[in-house]
Amino acid sequence: MLRATIDADVFREAVDAIAALVSECRFHVDSEGMRTRAVDTANVAMVSLELGPDAFEVFEASESALGIDVTKLKNIIGMVNRGDPLMLSIPEESQRLNLAFQSYQYSLTLLDPNTIRKDPNAPTLELPGKVVIEGAKLTNAIKAAAVVSDKIALGIDPEARVFFMEAEGDTDNIRLELGPDDVESLADVKARSLFSLDYLKDMAKSMSRASQIEIGIGIDHPVRFTFEIAGGKGRVIYLLAPRIEAD
Amino acid sequence: MLRATIDADVFREAVDAIAALVSECRFHVDSEGMRTRAVDTANVAMVSLELGPDAFEVFEASESALGIDVTKLKNIIGMVNRGDPLMLSIPEESQRLNLAFQSYQYSLTLLDPNTIRKDPNAPTLELPGKVVIEGAKLTNAIKAAAVVSDKIALGIDPEARVFFMEAEGDTDNIRLELGPDDVESLADVKARSLFSLDYLKDMAKSMSRASQIEIGIGIDHPVRFTFEIAGGKGRVIYLLAPRIEAD
Amino acid sequence: MLRATIDADVFREAVDAIAALVSECRFHVDSEGMRTRAVDTANVAMVSLELGPDAFEVFEASESALGIDVTKLKNIIGMVNRGDPLMLSIPEESQRLNLAFQSYQYSLTLLDPNTIRKDPNAPTLELPGKVVIEGAKLTNAIKAAAVVSDKIALGIDPEARVFFMEAEGDTDNIRLELGPDDVESLADVKARSLFSLDYLKDMAKSMSRASQIEIGIGIDHPVRFTFEIAGGKGRVIYLLAPRIEAD
Repeated sequence: MLRATIDADVFREAVDAIAALVSECRFHVDSEGMRTRAVDTANVAMVSLELGPDAFEVFEASESALGIDVTKLKNIIGMVNRGDPLMLSIPEESQRLNLAFQSYQYSLTLLDPNTIRKDPNAPTLELPGKVVIEGAKLTNAIKAAAVVSDKIALGIDPEARVFFMEAEGDTDNIRLELGPDDVESLADVKARSLFSLDYLKDMAKSMSRASQIEIGIGIDHPVRFTFEIAGGKGRVIYLLAPRIEAD
Repeated sequence: MLRATIDADVFREAVDAIAALVSECRFHVDSEGMRTRAVDTANVAMVSLELGPDAFEVFEASESALGIDVTKLKNIIGMVNRGDPLMLSIPEESQRLNLAFQSYQYSLTLLDPNTIRKDPNAPTLELPGKVVIEGAKLTNAIKAAAVVSDKIALGIDPEARVFFMEAEGDTDNIRLELGPDDVESLADVKARSLFSLDYLKDMAKSMSRASQIEIGIGIDHPVRFTFEIAGGKGRVIYLLAPRIEAD
Repeated sequence: MLRATIDADVFREAVDAIAALVSECRFHVDSEGMRTRAVDTANVAMVSLELGPDAFEVFEASESALGIDVTKLKNIIGMVNRGDPLMLSIPEESQRLNLAFQSYQYSLTLLDPNTIRKDPNAPTLELPGKVVIEGAKLTNAIKAAAVVSDKIALGIDPEARVFFMEAEGDTDNIRLELGPDDVESLADVKARSLFSLDYLKDMAKSMSRASQIEIGIGIDHPVRFTFEIAGGKGRVIYLLAPRIEAD
């Protein structure tokens, strides 16, 4: 059972963050809100989303796992006007998610949760390199790197006290250095790992709106991006595995 | 012979309404203005357009039927700036439509009217279900339905006193109900017919600008959309045949 | 050696003007500024660009010829925000052009100038038909002609005292006549030549922003378009060979 009302923009932000990586997932609902965690088909990237009950205007849910066709849900929510309230409901014993807005009633068949790949465990990661940066700055750097290459190195140079991003193409390269004036905080720990720009570009769409992104990096380790949505009542975490550096 | 001046936006609206369904047609001109009626190649949809002489700033025409390449005419009119006057002329005995605007002179060869399929008769239709609705509301519903299906049912539920639209996909469905507060008038007559969304999407572009659309529906009957253009000095009618309901 | 700072918009305008015709070229730099001249692969069109040292905020250069991948340079400059200063530098003996803006450092490998086709000579052309016209008027005419044809005739009718453009399609044609009120100056010399619209459309993107374009035309001769960029501190010349008129 689910009965919830949420601002359409807030829910769109949440669904878009998931849709960047996966086309179906399991929404876990209970009195603590809504949660999902999913990995992409290639097992390279993971998204984890939490929406607390206070992200909703109304929220009542009995504990259950909902199989969601993320792509369809995204298309339907794309129809709702900015700021309109969106009502979500699943009657007791039903296998359909009803979405109501304005005078519309959508009914979306839930997927059988057993057909969706198992929820990944949250890996325990030691990522001592911490940087807090504006979302737009991070996503601009991702776009700039894509002009010359398909991969990007993210790192911290503790001596120069900069967070850096580097991309190397066949003949060209780009380097961006952000010092203490450009980032909101920076751990003085050496870090550097290489990532696929394809994944980062997908994630960038959601991250560009965040006022603050906490980046966790290590040496040849995954990167973790953590940011708030829904005015702080929800949180998204992206994890991305590193690429092997070919020298 | 034709000598006419018309606001470019008004003529663009008229030509766009026709171009949504057909790529060539016959313009009938005489002292009563300009009229055309044409069916699409699949014989599923019909457009009928009337522009009275007062839709034009200048209008003089001897009775004739002009074979028009609608696609070309649309492209040329696309060049004219908003609000510029457009001069249309066909000298006596000529087979060319001249279009003049700003310092430009276009000359468009008329098609031989005999090579264009015969004007359809206006079918006599009993469509007791009458709804008057804002164009934007109708076209939003068409877009919303397209998210889940390729067909839409339009109907009136006289007991609930609502105009409804329903679309069913393989697993999902959407229903929109508009009551007395949402429509400008509604006949209390039972009606329901199913239509192809492809055609409706084509028509929607023209209908979205209309402040009022009169919809005529029946039970498994065609639908008729009637709306004004050119500030009430012109009128467009779309007719669309129903689809068979497969259950 | 090169060390230069320039407004990103000014440099973008210059690079876009070249990129319209060629994908690589030789930049000649010395104390007089930056110059390039290149023909397209089909030998039909030529672009010539000059940027004086005062188009730059800082400009120091030892005489050299730089092999430039124009497409890559255009993509990189596309990343720079409007009005940001762009620093260009090539250290002594280096084969890399460094581009710095905001916190970014791009490094673009120079092409070997010997692998780029030889600079064309500037042909000596007698083009007595001179017209000075606003860039937007010229480019609108090019777009209008493209609706009916793939070629356009440009000419001067000295008796009617008009600059004209004519395009003829299979069945349709367009003619634009601009008299003394529409052009800024007009030589009373008979001229008419036919040109490919494909090339003119490529050139039009750069020409549309120019407040004045000087056109030089003859009878079945090339056309020359000359216009200023960088607030008068730079100049672009396009030359386009005529097409044979098939009658």
